[in-house]
Amino acid sequence: MPSPILILNGPNLNLLGEREPEIYGTETLADIAAAVETAADALGLNVEFRQTNAEAELVTWIQEARGKYAGIVLNAGAFTHTSVAIYDALLLCEQPVIEVHLSNIFRREPFRHHSYVAPAAQGLICGFGGHGYVLALQAMARILDSDAKK
Amino acid sequence: MPSPILILNGPNLNLLGEREPEIYGTETLADIAAAVETAADALGLNVEFRQTNAEAELVTWIQEARGKYAGIVLNAGAFTHTSVAIYDALLLCEQPVIEVHLSNIFRREPFRHHSYVAPAAQGLICGFGGHGYVLALQAMARILDSDAKK
Amino acid sequence: MPSPILILNGPNLNLLGEREPEIYGTETLADIAAAVETAADALGLNVEFRQTNAEAELVTWIQEARGKYAGIVLNAGAFTHTSVAIYDALLLCEQPVIEVHLSNIFRREPFRHHSYVAPAAQGLICGFGGHGYVLALQAMARILDSDAKK
Amino acid sequence: MPSPILILNGPNLNLLGEREPEIYGTETLADIAAAVETAADALGLNVEFRQTNAEAELVTWIQEARGKYAGIVLNAGAFTHTSVAIYDALLLCEQPVIEVHLSNIFRREPFRHHSYVAPAAQGLICGFGGHGYVLALQAMARILDSDAKK
Amino acid sequence: MPSPILILNGPNLNLLGEREPEIYGTETLADIAAAVETAADALGLNVEFRQTNAEAELVTWIQEARGKYAGIVLNAGAFTHTSVAIYDALLLCEQPVIEVHLSNIFRREPFRHHSYVAPAAQGLICGFGGHGYVLALQAMARILDSDAKK
Amino acid sequence: MPSPILILNGPNLNLLGEREPEIYGTETLADIAAAVETAADALGLNVEFRQTNAEAELVTWIQEARGKYAGIVLNAGAFTHTSVAIYDALLLCEQPVIEVHLSNIFRREPFRHHSYVAPAAQGLICGFGGHGYVLALQAMARILDSDAKK
Amino acid sequence: MPSPILILNGPNLNLLGEREPEIYGTETLADIAAAVETAADALGLNVEFRQTNAEAELVTWIQEARGKYAGIVLNAGAFTHTSVAIYDALLLCEQPVIEVHLSNIFRREPFRHHSYVAPAAQGLICGFGGHGYVLALQAMARILDSDAKK
Amino acid sequence: MPSPILILNGPNLNLLGEREPEIYGTETLADIAAAVETAADALGLNVEFRQTNAEAELVTWIQEARGKYAGIVLNAGAFTHTSVAIYDALLLCEQPVIEVHLSNIFRREPFRHHSYVAPAAQGLICGFGGHGYVLALQAMARILDSDAKK
Amino acid sequence: MPSPILILNGPNLNLLGEREPEIYGTETLADIAAAVETAADALGLNVEFRQTNAEAELVTWIQEARGKYAGIVLNAGAFTHTSVAIYDALLLCEQPVIEVHLSNIFRREPFRHHSYVAPAAQGLICGFGGHGYVLALQAMARILDSDAKK
Amino acid sequence: MPSPILILNGPNLNLLGEREPEIYGTETLADIAAAVETAADALGLNVEFRQTNAEAELVTWIQEARGKYAGIVLNAGAFTHTSVAIYDALLLCEQPVIEVHLSNIFRREPFRHHSYVAPAAQGLICGFGGHGYVLALQAMARILDSDAKK
Amino acid sequence: MPSPILILNGPNLNLLGEREPEIYGTETLADIAAAVETAADALGLNVEFRQTNAEAELVTWIQEARGKYAGIVLNAGAFTHTSVAIYDALLLCEQPVIEVHLSNIFRREPFRHHSYVAPAAQGLICGFGGHGYVLALQAMARILDSDAKK
Amino acid sequence: MPSPILILNGPNLNLLGEREPEIYGTETLADIAAAVETAADALGLNVEFRQTNAEAELVTWIQEARGKYAGIVLNAGAFTHTSVAIYDALLLCEQPVIEVHLSNIFRREPFRHHSYVAPAAQGLICGFGGHGYVLALQAMARILDSDAKK
Repeated sequence: MPSPILILNGPNLNLLGEREPEIYGTETLADIAAAVETAADALGLNVEFRQTNAEAELVTWIQEARGKYAGIVLNAGAFTHTSVAIYDALLLCEQPVIEVHLSNIFRREPFRHHSYVAPAAQGLICGFGGHGYVLALQAMARILDSDAKK
Repeated sequence: MPSPILILNGPNLNLLGEREPEIYGTETLADIAAAVETAADALGLNVEFRQTNAEAELVTWIQEARGKYAGIVLNAGAFTHTSVAIYDALLLCEQPVIEVHLSNIFRREPFRHHSYVAPAAQGLICGFGGHGYVLALQAMARILDSDAKK
Repeated sequence: MPSPILILNGPNLNLLGEREPEIYGTETLADIAAAVETAADALGLNVEFRQTNAEAELVTWIQEARGKYAGIVLNAGAFTHTSVAIYDALLLCEQPVIEVHLSNIFRREPFRHHSYVAPAAQGLICGFGGHGYVLALQAMARILDSDAKK
Repeated sequence: MPSPILILNGPNLNLLGEREPEIYGTETLADIAAAVETAADALGLNVEFRQTNAEAELVTWIQEARGKYAGIVLNAGAFTHTSVAIYDALLLCEQPVIEVHLSNIFRREPFRHHSYVAPAAQGLICGFGGHGYVLALQAMARILDSDAKK
Repeated sequence: MPSPILILNGPNLNLLGEREPEIYGTETLADIAAAVETAADALGLNVEFRQTNAEAELVTWIQEARGKYAGIVLNAGAFTHTSVAIYDALLLCEQPVIEVHLSNIFRREPFRHHSYVAPAAQGLICGFGGHGYVLALQAMARILDSDAKK
Repeated sequence: MPSPILILNGPNLNLLGEREPEIYGTETLADIAAAVETAADALGLNVEFRQTNAEAELVTWIQEARGKYAGIVLNAGAFTHTSVAIYDALLLCEQPVIEVHLSNIFRREPFRHHSYVAPAAQGLICGFGGHGYVLALQAMARILDSDAKK
Repeated sequence: MPSPILILNGPNLNLLGEREPEIYGTETLADIAAAVETAADALGLNVEFRQTNAEAELVTWIQEARGKYAGIVLNAGAFTHTSVAIYDALLLCEQPVIEVHLSNIFRREPFRHHSYVAPAAQGLICGFGGHGYVLALQAMARILDSDAKK
Repeated sequence: MPSPILILNGPNLNLLGEREPEIYGTETLADIAAAVETAADALGLNVEFRQTNAEAELVTWIQEARGKYAGIVLNAGAFTHTSVAIYDALLLCEQPVIEVHLSNIFRREPFRHHSYVAPAAQGLICGFGGHGYVLALQAMARILDSDAKK
Repeated sequence: MPSPILILNGPNLNLLGEREPEIYGTETLADIAAAVETAADALGLNVEFRQTNAEAELVTWIQEARGKYAGIVLNAGAFTHTSVAIYDALLLCEQPVIEVHLSNIFRREPFRHHSYVAPAAQGLICGFGGHGYVLALQAMARILDSDAKK
Repeated sequence: MPSPILILNGPNLNLLGEREPEIYGTETLADIAAAVETAADALGLNVEFRQTNAEAELVTWIQEARGKYAGIVLNAGAFTHTSVAIYDALLLCEQPVIEVHLSNIFRREPFRHHSYVAPAAQGLICGFGGHGYVLALQAMARILDSDAKK
Repeated sequence: MPSPILILNGPNLNLLGEREPEIYGTETLADIAAAVETAADALGLNVEFRQTNAEAELVTWIQEARGKYAGIVLNAGAFTHTSVAIYDALLLCEQPVIEVHLSNIFRREPFRHHSYVAPAAQGLICGFGGHGYVLALQAMARILDSDAKK
Repeated sequence: MPSPILILNGPNLNLLGEREPEIYGTETLADIAAAVETAADALGLNVEFRQTNAEAELVTWIQEARGKYAGIVLNAGAFTHTSVAIYDALLLCEQPVIEVHLSNIFRREPFRHHSYVAPAAQGLICGFGGHGYVLALQAMARILDSDAKK
């Protein structure tokens, strides 16, 4: 069986769907994890889904992915815009990395338009809510499939 | 049958795969159109696929989409970074719009990091080559499905 | 009979009043053209009223105005903020030029606060909707009258 | 009889036409006041015309306009570019406000391209010399007429 | 009896509570003055409460505070962001100065995020409406008390 | 009994008063906690006082405040200027938040003049040393009292 | 016979020498074309000389040059400063490209100091009026000659 | 007897020498006026020496200088850095203007390095304390003498 | 025996030499620690060598160094460019601090050219790989020796 | 015989072709001087060819060109981007000046895109290696010829 | 006899009055030197007057002034805006330094508004042509006199 | 015997230790040269130690180092921040280059934080006074040793 895909979520994503559902919708991070699980099954992939509020934990998870995970789907949340440490960890990373955001970050405050993650990722998917993770998984499946054929 | 999806391509995308294949790959715009067609069939959608080097033609196509197309997938190419006219046309547009780029624009020159299209689009997919169009179509199908349920 | 006044409209102005009337009002470009016609009659002027989505067409119309039109009233729409080519055409233009905008561009996004047209125009009228064209025509009549007396 | 229109002029406009007439023309502020008076009569409006070199006096005049004047036509002169206090007074103002400048401020020094008045005004007319006040009065008449019909 | 505290208010604060109460609340400057008076009594302090629309008057009041007032509480309103003259007057001032704003200036337009007053003041209190003046008075009482003990 | 107020302190505030007392004063964080406790008793409030050097812990504490604390007083220390994660946590926060700093941050290095906390807080108090916490508590008491009356 | 050289001219260059000859000189674009023809004969080269006001036409001409023209001499006029689309077309171009301007663009407005064409061209010649085209042709001849020898 | 020289002083200069003499020296504005008077006598000139905290008064004094004063020596104090109104008044001024500052403004805060007065003045003298006024008077005498010889 | 030197390493330095050795070399952090140990012995110093991915841990280690370590050698890695918290901890630090980087940070991305650590450190050594730590230890020895002689 | 043309070369150009020939080519400055000599003969011109590493020497050579040389061809090398002194010398220069660079400076580091020489020169030729000097000489010949005919 | 005053002139000032006298006047550097000599005699001072086009020579002259000259009057010409080396030499200088410019540098190009000399000088005199040197000498005499009295 | 190391010092370093010893210390450049000599002996290296105030001399010395010196240690002083010519000379240099500064340039004025030397050097050592040269020599010895082993 192929190596699983590591799906990492940054700060405050644990609150998804729990507060102000009239604004942010009722989809929780657990709902997204379940949808991703379903999509992974359909694609014949395994996934591991984690969240943390700590930058250091994200850095360490990315470091440890080596040799154990076939790819990383990363929604670094607020750290997207501030963390050179995550950027450096990704630079050292040999697997394909896909950046995901729930909202379209280009419709939000200007400081969210810059991403330290982006230049270290193969591609970016944003603005599709939780479905973006499923799209990212499909993109990852194709990349891994294409790499396998090389 | 539902309204088709309009897939628009901006300047120089007509040359895709024809020059320097060792750099840009051998996938042509016709290859992408064919892959999109296949994906559309699988999703039960119709698509119309166009390319132009002219900003005015893109503006007019977006204007004319009204009432005829259920959504727009737009790779505005170089106009992404310079065209307020396309931005204005998109603002007047009532259908969902998804922005696509073949490459990860955040790995390229700084002037490509700004997009006039982005704040007028629901979401952005970039860095996955021609497969990004297929992902955009899948995202569009879900958005239309979700809107239909409202 | 004196030379007519050329009234030029840029991209997306053809949609005026047709979409989201609760936001943009119900006044169409044809309504404005009619009001301008009426005002021109009262001022003893002829007008010619055109719209295009193409920058090149605006450039060419401005070039061709020479010797045929007594003045130009220009709402360059989105090109106001991006077109050096229109600016250059206006610099070569010998007739008086008046810049018009339907909305007050200084209440909108920052990139709309800069105008390439402005330094090539005698004056600017903005924020009065379609009536701004009538005011521009009155201003033009006075300028032509004053030039005639010199 | 309807409430009059308050026409306010900022610093140094009292010198208009008195110095260097070969550059600035021979039209004085009194000449403009007279032309405005004539135009007001034709429009069935009353106007009150004032000038001051003091920012505080402009602020106070704008504050006191409440309930006494139907609209304000404001040429804030140099304060256009520096006065947040006038901007704040205008924000608290319930009447329509029209910004006027004798010259086209976009043809002058860069620091004159920014206006604190502009986002607090309905519209802007500049570059038509004293005739700009008459155009502003005509625009004001139409706004008041249109508001009256609502 | 100790020297009184001088409480100074800048332009447009005289209109507080008189316009658009649904937005700005119904608290007037007189209400604030009364609340401050009450708080001063409780603290055993005298206060003097003034407002002006004129920058020069604020400068002169600050200058004249010398030897007569034990401290200054200053809400310079719009001048906060534009007046080097007030800054210079404060630099020459020997008493403690506390800066107050009704609203949280960091939630408003970017030009309100810069304060010429701030580096010349001991501290800043903003975002608490009229109650901010009472807090400032309490802070001032403690500073004076602490200075007295030195 | 009403919900307590959560008082959070960011990195390096644990050293307060322990080093270079001739510069920073001899007031320790424990002294401030005691003074806040006393003030809380007088106001009939409970407080909980914490400090951490870890951004993730601040984020988690803010997240967990929901339903347990009536309000948050936050001195985020150095994270004030760098943490989008804390800003996001505060945006999801339903209680009133008051920002406190010991020093007047506008008298320090330019990078301390920007606060990610400020636009997510109701108000800001800075420059009054440890007494600023007491002022913040008084402000919080009034906000809660005022909310209770609504 | 070797492939010809394509000489492309952008917007407003069609008016050269026709307006304000006391400023711009009396040399027309036809005069330049004739001088270039003469120089080409002397160098044993063929040239094709075109002008357009349309960005899309320039893009398409550059695209079509492939396999038909040995090199491109480009005076993109105003598009020099605004067109990423032309830049992208040039990047895909395999022939040598030489940028020409009639005037010294560094003596003009600051926005003319930036060129999107420049980094995609081998060299730049500006400030020599129509003679710059002849110099460009001589430079092109030498480049082609040098390439032929490799 | 020739027209006198008008010597104007802006805000806070009235406090010169009265506060913190160990820092600013003990020279008062009256001392400077006396030294200027003495120097004027020696040069056969009359001077008039004024100070105000009000920008409007400076503007009006400059306006009124016309025909009555042979030249202006101006220390606009804080208004140097913020007043477009004074700049405009100086532009309308026909007499020679000399800018003076007590301190070397280039050794102070960055916002003091920009002067609106400077481009409207013939020359600038700063950093010599009150003696700068005497130097300015000597410079003025020479300019007037030189003008008289033309 | 004198107090030891604390040698601190920030995020991702734990991976040194383990990934892409053809780029980063084969020297691991353990190799550097060993070389430092050897150098310390030669200098008669003790060292303690630590690494962490967590900003808070670096802050705490710096805080705790007080009274226990004679100096700090710090390679803060990515935090060099983003951490005000580390800067603040260093400001409170009484021992000499030396900043080390393996690579020459001025040859890398622009955001790495700014260091929050630098102004809080006595000196900087970068670009010499692991040998930079040995140089830093030699520099530290000399500083401690020189301080001891004072 | 007409006055000769002075050809000046700035710092490091003496090393041309001597180092890293695989990168910079094998053409030396002496080779360029010889090619220029040949071209000059063909044009009936005399040239004088100099190089220096000293800014002052370039300034002095430009100063001394007066009355002795008919024109200057200048490759100021690194001084192009930093020397106001050379710019000033050129401003005082009465002969035509042509700026030359071996490489296309717009393809290099951003600090090389700004030229102090450019606004003081009639035209610019860059990107053609040593042949650029020959083109400059041809351009100079035509300018001198054209001036002679006036 | 007191130490002489060293008067230093930077690049291109040697050409003063020799070129374009209708623009720059006919006053030569020798004329200025003579006028300074006369003024020095009247003040009982000795002066030494030098000019160089070389930055290094200015640096060395400033270095060597130590112990030999009582003060320096410096017109660094173009180096004013570019030379940190001169700034550093002046920082090491113990004598009073006065900066002089012939023209008002604030009326010229923006890059001339910044002076590296200014913060190292006691005062600045500009805009008075050669007479500025005489004023500077008078200012220097007073400074030396005042220092002597301390 | 191996080629010697060239140690170059820029402007004003000749004054080291001679002026204001209470600020800059009493260590002279000769003292540093002696310490470097001693260290060189210990390392079995020869060194040559030079200083100049002239940029051109530094450029020429760097050029001439080729084939004669094994490496360069460079303290370019003020030229560090302004000299593209030195940067270009270093780019052409084949030996290893180490940048040294006596002070920590990141604790000084902002314009000293940028170094043209840094990207052309292998490494940077600053903030250790004269001892930095010894450290640089040790670093150089190791680099040469390591290169020799390749």
